Amino acid sequence: MCEPIEFYFDFSSPYAYLASERVDDLAAKHGRKVKWRPMLLGVVIQKTGLPLLLNVPIKGEYSMRDILRSARYYDVTFNFPAKFPVSAVTPSRAYYWLHGQDCAKARTFAHATFRAYWVDGRDISDMAVVLDIAAALGVDRDALAAGMVTPEIKERLKVETDTALAKGMCGAPYFVVDGEPFWGADRLPQIEKWLTTGGF
Amino acid sequence: MCEPIEFYFDFSSPYAYLASERVDDLAAKHGRKVKWRPMLLGVVIQKTGLPLLLNVPIKGEYSMRDILRSARYYDVTFNFPAKFPVSAVTPSRAYYWLHGQDCAKARTFAHATFRAYWVDGRDISDMAVVLDIAAALGVDRDALAAGMVTPEIKERLKVETDTALAKGMCGAPYFVVDGEPFWGADRLPQIEKWLTTGGF
Repeated sequence: MCEPIEFYFDFSSPYAYLASERVDDLAAKHGRKVKWRPMLLGVVIQKTGLPLLLNVPIKGEYSMRDILRSARYYDVTFNFPAKFPVSAVTPSRAYYWLHGQDCAKARTFAHATFRAYWVDGRDISDMAVVLDIAAALGVDRDALAAGMVTPEIKERLKVETDTALAKGMCGAPYFVVDGEPFWGADRLPQIEKWLTTGGF
Repeated sequence: MCEPIEFYFDFSSPYAYLASERVDDLAAKHGRKVKWRPMLLGVVIQKTGLPLLLNVPIKGEYSMRDILRSARYYDVTFNFPAKFPVSAVTPSRAYYWLHGQDCAKARTFAHATFRAYWVDGRDISDMAVVLDIAAALGVDRDALAAGMVTPEIKERLKVETDTALAKGMCGAPYFVVDGEPFWGADRLPQIEKWLTTGGF
């Protein structure tokens, strides 16, 4: 098996951010690539009919503690942002436009966007912030601003979100490895075993 | 730190069963004991206001697949029972009565009850089944039948369930290690790091 690992995520998911800092290295250890696919988790949440995890009585309080502890467990720098959740529409569209220009740059932009939000607390739903993040990576600000609002890019984000749903995405991060779905940063050890053994 | 690890669970939770097959060995590696505390998860589920996981659209389908794969991952024999969920009132009361008589026997009974349900598909909500499980371990059937319905034992199960809630239990299995709460069989690696490092 040598297809890339599919990694579906919403930039505003804390567990997706934690996984984003680890999944490329994990895949590389096994000679695999990762296909990063930002999408809009709100669509999944609507389909499940569940409230946002952090708003669930008892579970929400536990989860905040778990997120912070998990960041320490994975040794990932993490600061819960003051504004949460935020819409991931703008950075996700920027990602897909960049991906069409330079897929390595798009990966770098995705990391920078996650960190801008989950380390520095910047509002990644704000177009100006997204343009700043990209410009710092040498991306032409005006080209990005124009490119990310074209009908093709808007449609691309919808299609990727629909694709994630069609693959059974039930939360973020969501991985598909050789057809097998894995939900959660806490499934990275199972993914590692899957890559090591060729499935179990 | 040498207090026992607190392990709260409902016998009808599949992830609690998986954890039950691993947590004692994990604790023993670090010179720690585990305090097993069966309780009634329905009370927690009511407080969270969430439906049963397996009934949630999309998430339910994923979770069934995840449970079966997780059993293979942990190398635990597992067969999803035809009747699910079942009430854990009867085996939980039996556990607490036995615990008052012989705590080692109570632990053996808890393992046998989990396996009767999650391997052999027996209906552990049925008093006759519970008495059979205990009798096979040398427990006096009549003494157990009488002991487990006393007001003291009924109250004990309520108190343990309330205690779990007071400690923030939001799902099963739920562990408390030196005051730190961990929810899920998938948090065993974090518990291991906690025991190794004395907290992180």
